[in-house]
Amino acid sequence: MDNFTFYAPTYYVFGTDAERETGRYVRRFGGTRVLIHYGGGSALRSGVIDRVCLSLEQEGITYLMLGGVMPNPRSGLVYEGIRLCREEGVDFILAVGGGSVIDSAKAIAAGVLYRGDFWDLYQGGFTDRALPVGTVLTISAAGSEGSANSVITKEEGMFKRRTTGEALRPKFSILNPELTFSVSPYQTACGITDILAHLYERYLTNTEDVEVTDRMIEGLMLAMIHEGPRVMEDPEDYGARANIMWAGTMAHNNSCGVGRTQDWNSHSIEHELSALYDCAHGAGLAVVLPAVLTYCLPHDVMRLARLAERVWGCRIDPGQPAAAAEEGIRRFRQFLHGIGMPGTFAELGAKEEDIPYLAHVCCWGDGRKGTLDGYVRLNEEDVDRIYRMML
Amino acid sequence: MDNFTFYAPTYYVFGTDAERETGRYVRRFGGTRVLIHYGGGSALRSGVIDRVCLSLEQEGITYLMLGGVMPNPRSGLVYEGIRLCREEGVDFILAVGGGSVIDSAKAIAAGVLYRGDFWDLYQGGFTDRALPVGTVLTISAAGSEGSANSVITKEEGMFKRRTTGEALRPKFSILNPELTFSVSPYQTACGITDILAHLYERYLTNTEDVEVTDRMIEGLMLAMIHEGPRVMEDPEDYGARANIMWAGTMAHNNSCGVGRTQDWNSHSIEHELSALYDCAHGAGLAVVLPAVLTYCLPHDVMRLARLAERVWGCRIDPGQPAAAAEEGIRRFRQFLHGIGMPGTFAELGAKEEDIPYLAHVCCWGDGRKGTLDGYVRLNEEDVDRIYRMML
Repeated sequence: MDNFTFYAPTYYVFGTDAERETGRYVRRFGGTRVLIHYGGGSALRSGVIDRVCLSLEQEGITYLMLGGVMPNPRSGLVYEGIRLCREEGVDFILAVGGGSVIDSAKAIAAGVLYRGDFWDLYQGGFTDRALPVGTVLTISAAGSEGSANSVITKEEGMFKRRTTGEALRPKFSILNPELTFSVSPYQTACGITDILAHLYERYLTNTEDVEVTDRMIEGLMLAMIHEGPRVMEDPEDYGARANIMWAGTMAHNNSCGVGRTQDWNSHSIEHELSALYDCAHGAGLAVVLPAVLTYCLPHDVMRLARLAERVWGCRIDPGQPAAAAEEGIRRFRQFLHGIGMPGTFAELGAKEEDIPYLAHVCCWGDGRKGTLDGYVRLNEEDVDRIYRMML
Repeated sequence: MDNFTFYAPTYYVFGTDAERETGRYVRRFGGTRVLIHYGGGSALRSGVIDRVCLSLEQEGITYLMLGGVMPNPRSGLVYEGIRLCREEGVDFILAVGGGSVIDSAKAIAAGVLYRGDFWDLYQGGFTDRALPVGTVLTISAAGSEGSANSVITKEEGMFKRRTTGEALRPKFSILNPELTFSVSPYQTACGITDILAHLYERYLTNTEDVEVTDRMIEGLMLAMIHEGPRVMEDPEDYGARANIMWAGTMAHNNSCGVGRTQDWNSHSIEHELSALYDCAHGAGLAVVLPAVLTYCLPHDVMRLARLAERVWGCRIDPGQPAAAAEEGIRRFRQFLHGIGMPGTFAELGAKEEDIPYLAHVCCWGDGRKGTLDGYVRLNEEDVDRIYRMML
């Protein structure tokens, strides 16, 4: 196991009606003037924003609103949010939504305190100061409610980049599974895929002696495999929604990823797809991840064979671990298909003729230096081949 | 899943040489004058206290020392620590040791800010204010380095009682697996047992729809079952020590225990044994836990059968889940025996003729009201029977 530090001081308030306590937690973490950041009209129509506003008012906290965050959140709205917060003296950013809203809120929170162009932080990959952020989660997927990361797409060039830093961990996150009842089947399945991808990306490690985090990851995967189909069958199954919500947070707050190298190549390869075609991140991962797993299988056959055995119930025949590993990938693909996720490039609206461009920008675009340095070091040719495996 | 809040803002610094950074973290969390609290001479002889002192000096932080914490830490030293801290203007308590030292440090930290007798907090079970505490862990077992709990024994009456509260979470914990190399085989096995007990106590729940936390607990158990024998074979196996250390912290910081009722009856039943006979807490649990599991098996046969299948590799024959559950308990007992833990009352130095007293004080002693209200509600007669199952 590698040396590490781990600090996850997010206060989680989990359960029915939890959003009615938002004001109390904003106050606890020092907010007096709040920017409520959200996406489309659903947060308004569903009444969640009304309840949040009421709870702020009850604490005497003033607020202003900035909606309009799109999936794969863009830099344009971030610049607008930064300007608004500075003009209005905002001291706390409250995200009401899913990962896109939370990531956009984190970008605004960092940008307000940064003297230059906030995009520097996404090119440099590191952020050390930000206004406090709180979240009211309405989609289980990205894990941003407990993570120290944020991903933003810059309109010029459509680069999708990530920044990270302790300052970006939300001070509190309100997790009410009922708020996810109305998430569409497709978006629910995208969320399930994203959560599984966060687990796979952590599982793909080159570090030895990581049994404890391996087992935690496998446990969270098993829970997702159990709960995913349940929620697809009944979107208002509170138990299934609750299990998925906590699994999504635990999958990405990094308690199961400490002390080990992680991959994130699949995320990088997917980010070019959602940046160019604006497909859902989870749907993109459903296509990318099995291809990356297949391409990287020879790197450590036993790791994927063990995963196939422990999580996908495959039997490892002596001397044939690769067969078990392949069967594990096949069952994963089947699972994704079963919850309605796409399996091919075409289903994402992606085009074969774009592959050279995608592979190039993935390896050489804004801030990159020719390789993706995850579980396996991939160059432009590797990435090109991986995209072609998705055809 | 039940509603819950979860807040675990402990900064973990994990890995080789981590204790050399102690001073930096004391400063970060506001300490300027520190009480270093420790147990016996081993922390002095091993050099760990020297390295900690040096790192405090490098940050210009002054300190005083209070050693002498015994296993099953006593109220006497807590009173002495409280007095010392008040006289000397201490503003930060640094525990260098295992769970007993940390629990004693937490009691001092709470007591300094409490106007009355600190024991009130252990009778009431709740603590809302305390000086900040940091830890340098030298034994993987109690999980106190990440928990919000503390257990102290009061000399008058030898009552062993617990308090809990956010204020008791350590601000930081230094986890260097090398510091546990010198823990004796017996104490190492006691620690493994204590960690497994924390997982069992959380697993025994009456809450429905807790697949995600079930799976996390099972994963941590599987890691312990894998790593336990490895470390017993080679006490200086860094990987095994590291896995056990992180598992011990994750087992008890409650990320896998949220949203579900928990048991803790086994801990209560054991506490009377270690209070009266001063046996090691882990050794006591090795005797108590299988008896409690057997006694409570009929309460929810499927839960223990599932655990037997998923963790102990038992097969559930249709219509015979109790057989699998029993086999799971048998394998657990065998595992404990394999790492050198006792299996009977006599091996703990406990006496049959004390059972009526033990059962009485367990159910009616200081602050109790006749029953233990965990997974199964146990009265004095139940507890008496459970003690007799250990003969």
